[in-house]
Amino acid sequence: MPEKLARPMKIMELGEFALIERFKAGVHHSDGAVVVGIGDDGAVLVPAAGMVTIAVTDMLIEGVHFDLAYYNFIDLGRKAVNVNVSDVLVMGGLPRYALLSLALPGGVDVASIDQFISGFFEACEVYGISLAGGDTSSSPGGLCISVTLLGEAHADEVVKRSGAGIGDGVYVTGTLGNSAAGLDILRRGCMGLNHDDVYFLTQRHLNPQPRKDAVRLLTERHLATSMIDISDGLSSELHNIARASGKGISIFEQKLPASPALLEFTEKTGVSALEMLLHGGEEYEVLFTVDHDRVKELDDLIARGLLDATAIGVVNKDTDVTVVEKNGRARPLLPRGYEHFRV
Amino acid sequence: MPEKLARPMKIMELGEFALIERFKAGVHHSDGAVVVGIGDDGAVLVPAAGMVTIAVTDMLIEGVHFDLAYYNFIDLGRKAVNVNVSDVLVMGGLPRYALLSLALPGGVDVASIDQFISGFFEACEVYGISLAGGDTSSSPGGLCISVTLLGEAHADEVVKRSGAGIGDGVYVTGTLGNSAAGLDILRRGCMGLNHDDVYFLTQRHLNPQPRKDAVRLLTERHLATSMIDISDGLSSELHNIARASGKGISIFEQKLPASPALLEFTEKTGVSALEMLLHGGEEYEVLFTVDHDRVKELDDLIARGLLDATAIGVVNKDTDVTVVEKNGRARPLLPRGYEHFRV
Repeated sequence: MPEKLARPMKIMELGEFALIERFKAGVHHSDGAVVVGIGDDGAVLVPAAGMVTIAVTDMLIEGVHFDLAYYNFIDLGRKAVNVNVSDVLVMGGLPRYALLSLALPGGVDVASIDQFISGFFEACEVYGISLAGGDTSSSPGGLCISVTLLGEAHADEVVKRSGAGIGDGVYVTGTLGNSAAGLDILRRGCMGLNHDDVYFLTQRHLNPQPRKDAVRLLTERHLATSMIDISDGLSSELHNIARASGKGISIFEQKLPASPALLEFTEKTGVSALEMLLHGGEEYEVLFTVDHDRVKELDDLIARGLLDATAIGVVNKDTDVTVVEKNGRARPLLPRGYEHFRV
Repeated sequence: MPEKLARPMKIMELGEFALIERFKAGVHHSDGAVVVGIGDDGAVLVPAAGMVTIAVTDMLIEGVHFDLAYYNFIDLGRKAVNVNVSDVLVMGGLPRYALLSLALPGGVDVASIDQFISGFFEACEVYGISLAGGDTSSSPGGLCISVTLLGEAHADEVVKRSGAGIGDGVYVTGTLGNSAAGLDILRRGCMGLNHDDVYFLTQRHLNPQPRKDAVRLLTERHLATSMIDISDGLSSELHNIARASGKGISIFEQKLPASPALLEFTEKTGVSALEMLLHGGEEYEVLFTVDHDRVKELDDLIARGLLDATAIGVVNKDTDVTVVEKNGRARPLLPRGYEHFRV
């Protein structure tokens, strides 16, 4: 006789106020700058003297940004934080306070929400973030998660997209295209890849980590003239920097950094590695530019193993983005990242 | 032969980037404190020296918070701002910067979004708010609107829910229950009411105005020991203040302020006026408490027509909320406002 399974409790049985209590239980305001936190109409925060505030916000919509067929709620909780952490970091800031708004179908298991909470607070702890407030609602459609993250930066450390200058070196951290390959595996299966590669690539999609160490090194040494994370794919982000800076960028196909797992994936599946490297998004590797006079200093940091980054191109006086193919021919690189609504 | 109608353009034809451009076109950063606005990874804001930051966030979900059968996009744009303005005000702050996240079905008309934008910026202008950033996404379900509003307050002017003391007078601004009656009319029809009453009541639901003048008067004179807007209904908000302050509250049924339109509505429909006054939410009238020693000062402001408010009760040493009926009998008042997920 099969063991009787406990009936899982649903959010609609728990109710909104008990849900909020579950979040409150996870909050540890060691941070004295939170004067009023969850439970009032708003949060009251004391800005650090002499610092500017960095404010970013990002939505995760079920069926658009994630599919619960392969996303678990712990990863979802982490990602809701980390996608915003990455944006604060590349602006030259450090994250401080989060506001979380959550619209949930009433049929979601309470156990799933507890997993979300544990992933959310795990990521908050990693980056020193206090949950200061939020909003909860039922949802007649799918899950909708909206996080606003407030960070702080020294005014002279703020890095914008618009700072790239002619002759600047163009760099990316880590390796590219892994998240897009991971998503493909989650949708289509392992396709003969070994388990280590499958794990590496799918984790890059499900649980990508902001590049805090690299970004802070660049920020504190004032090395980056512009900086952006590659959430929409390299081609799109190159255009974002080129457009904001009013410059052109030329990159070299053969310099694009690929992981062994990605090469294994493209070999097994026949998917073009170049496509993945140029257009694969949904990751927190960072694209940045470095003043021509400081390129040697940066290359030294890379050579000494202090920074995991690769030189991929140069900023020029055009207003176009071009890619130089392996045969030496240059062609225009169109932005091909994800655009919402476009069919 | 009927005139040929122009085919309305849809968001999915416009695309995300053109949508963002439409919002950017509405932004007027006369506010020098916005160093970086829309178009980078995040906004960079300069906090005013010596002020604390008030951060509030609120979601509007189609099918939960509004129904497009009776909501137009201009009102929706205004409400997305005003619901947050009200929260910043009752904390003792003035709103400064908004972040707007918007998940839209691809089939929404561009003209509707232009209406949303005009309502949104109209409300921003009324309250001196700069749109500093946001996020846009497609939505496989209905509309999801999430706004975070950042405000500023003098640290000694912050008003919490928890400040009510024994003997404090309990007050509400304006009149109660109008928004709930308006919603009932929107759903069920005019029910024999005259047009002026219908307009008054439905506008209180569709386009409620934050009580800025009243709240600022109370804030600047340090008159309120606790303050909250009546978004969840008077009964719930009384419990929120009582619980946060660790006190009891007693109110008098016959003192609850009703508009002539509400009385007309309850007479025509047979709906209980008391139910509407005690439990009707979705409005920005403000519930606040005033120190016993300053009740006379407050009553003077009311008598001189400088403040539109009514004394409805008193804070006591219990931990319960009671209502004294017209016959003089006291009974416990249970919180009956809207709770998400509860069925």
